[in-house]
Amino acid sequence: MTFSSKLHRAQELASSVVCVGLDPDPDRFPDQFRDLPAPDAARRFCKAIIEATHEVACAYKPNLAFFEALGREGLGVLEDVVSSIPPDRISIADGKRGDIGNTAGRYAIAVFENLSFDACTVSPYMGRDAVSPFLAWPEKAAFALVRTSNPSAGEVQDLDVGDVPLYFRIARMLETWSSGEPGEIGFVVGATDTTILADIRDQFPDIPLLIPGIGAQGGDPEAVMATAIAGTGPIVVTSSRSILYAGQGVDFADRARDATIRLRDDLNRGR
Amino acid sequence: MTFSSKLHRAQELASSVVCVGLDPDPDRFPDQFRDLPAPDAARRFCKAIIEATHEVACAYKPNLAFFEALGREGLGVLEDVVSSIPPDRISIADGKRGDIGNTAGRYAIAVFENLSFDACTVSPYMGRDAVSPFLAWPEKAAFALVRTSNPSAGEVQDLDVGDVPLYFRIARMLETWSSGEPGEIGFVVGATDTTILADIRDQFPDIPLLIPGIGAQGGDPEAVMATAIAGTGPIVVTSSRSILYAGQGVDFADRARDATIRLRDDLNRGR
Repeated sequence: MTFSSKLHRAQELASSVVCVGLDPDPDRFPDQFRDLPAPDAARRFCKAIIEATHEVACAYKPNLAFFEALGREGLGVLEDVVSSIPPDRISIADGKRGDIGNTAGRYAIAVFENLSFDACTVSPYMGRDAVSPFLAWPEKAAFALVRTSNPSAGEVQDLDVGDVPLYFRIARMLETWSSGEPGEIGFVVGATDTTILADIRDQFPDIPLLIPGIGAQGGDPEAVMATAIAGTGPIVVTSSRSILYAGQGVDFADRARDATIRLRDDLNRGR
Repeated sequence: MTFSSKLHRAQELASSVVCVGLDPDPDRFPDQFRDLPAPDAARRFCKAIIEATHEVACAYKPNLAFFEALGREGLGVLEDVVSSIPPDRISIADGKRGDIGNTAGRYAIAVFENLSFDACTVSPYMGRDAVSPFLAWPEKAAFALVRTSNPSAGEVQDLDVGDVPLYFRIARMLETWSSGEPGEIGFVVGATDTTILADIRDQFPDIPLLIPGIGAQGGDPEAVMATAIAGTGPIVVTSSRSILYAGQGVDFADRARDATIRLRDDLNRGR
């Protein structure tokens, strides 16, 4: 099954385009996990979030930085968390890797073979060499950074490279680099600038989009969906902190589920 | 002690600007490690390489991809390897991380606090947010990708952004972003295009340079040093495969030491 087919099925099952970002931050864990060692707390916290939200989310996106920050057990915790994502949901390794070919190949083995992720995020700054090793698996996808949602995104990505902004030129290159490769390419495009999002959707209507920046970062759900429906490629809207840390008490998992449902419904109203 | 001071001292002690890149690839390990589980083999291999080369190298650069590809024990192996680097040598985490501020901060904690690295590599595509969290430690440095050594480096990095190539504009931004921060900024500039290297050195003479692309990637040692001496900032010339896999037999560590000495001497002749 291709990545897009699996994603489509997961979105149908959950009636949801919501991806829950897993950024386990020990300083923000619910009170009941405070006395546990951080790796154990992170493992239990993430598993509880997945258990509580999987009926209303199509995908999970572990943020590799937060697992690496757990110390030497970090990758073990990540492996345990990924294995608890239901097989009919999508898993996306968010590491934004980008390195020379033989190194990119190692990152691809780590996320796709060792950890069985369906997709990962990659950075295009080093060119085709850094992206194509992630496109060697027919059932996997690589979401490349095109126009991100952080405040300083535009400093580099919006630079004028002749007739178009850099992010747009990179999007065109990514389309070329992925042509004929077994795996699928997707774009990371933030929700924080809906004009840019609409423009990319218009120019690349069949490319899957991973859209961060909803929630804590300020993007508007209805505006995102209004532009997203202008194309045919699947879109995945990802939110982390506003779901994970919706509650601090014993009902934290229910609060995370409620927050996921609210976001799902806000998005579905825009469809 | 600042990063540059520590680096200067390490280079004096070893009479060397050579950094040994640690890319532990189980498929290329010496015969004696073939029957061990990959994490154990990687740990022993890297420690043997450090032990054999530390008198003639100023720095070590573990490539995080190769440790992550070892599976759930990967970060533990990395921690053990880093702790075996002599305290009077420099350690550089090569991960090319680049993400939104709160995530970049987690990566910084992972490499600088948990693993006690002296420096790391970062990617500038997401702008200042992605770089400045790595500059918060007064004794640490972040080497940002400016112009890399891989074959496709120019596809993005050489794009014309008005009057100059993108990599040059990014170098200027990095100088600004790091101004007033406690930590030091350095640039990653490949040895494969000596004209570009010379140009960056000329324009940014006091910025520390991390220079890959010597050896397996084809850069010429004497040409690199001829340009490097045109500035005052420290330079570090990194080589991985041509040192690590110089020999396959029981004398692999001696062969690695010989390869390091040859590179050191080739470079020192250019000084």
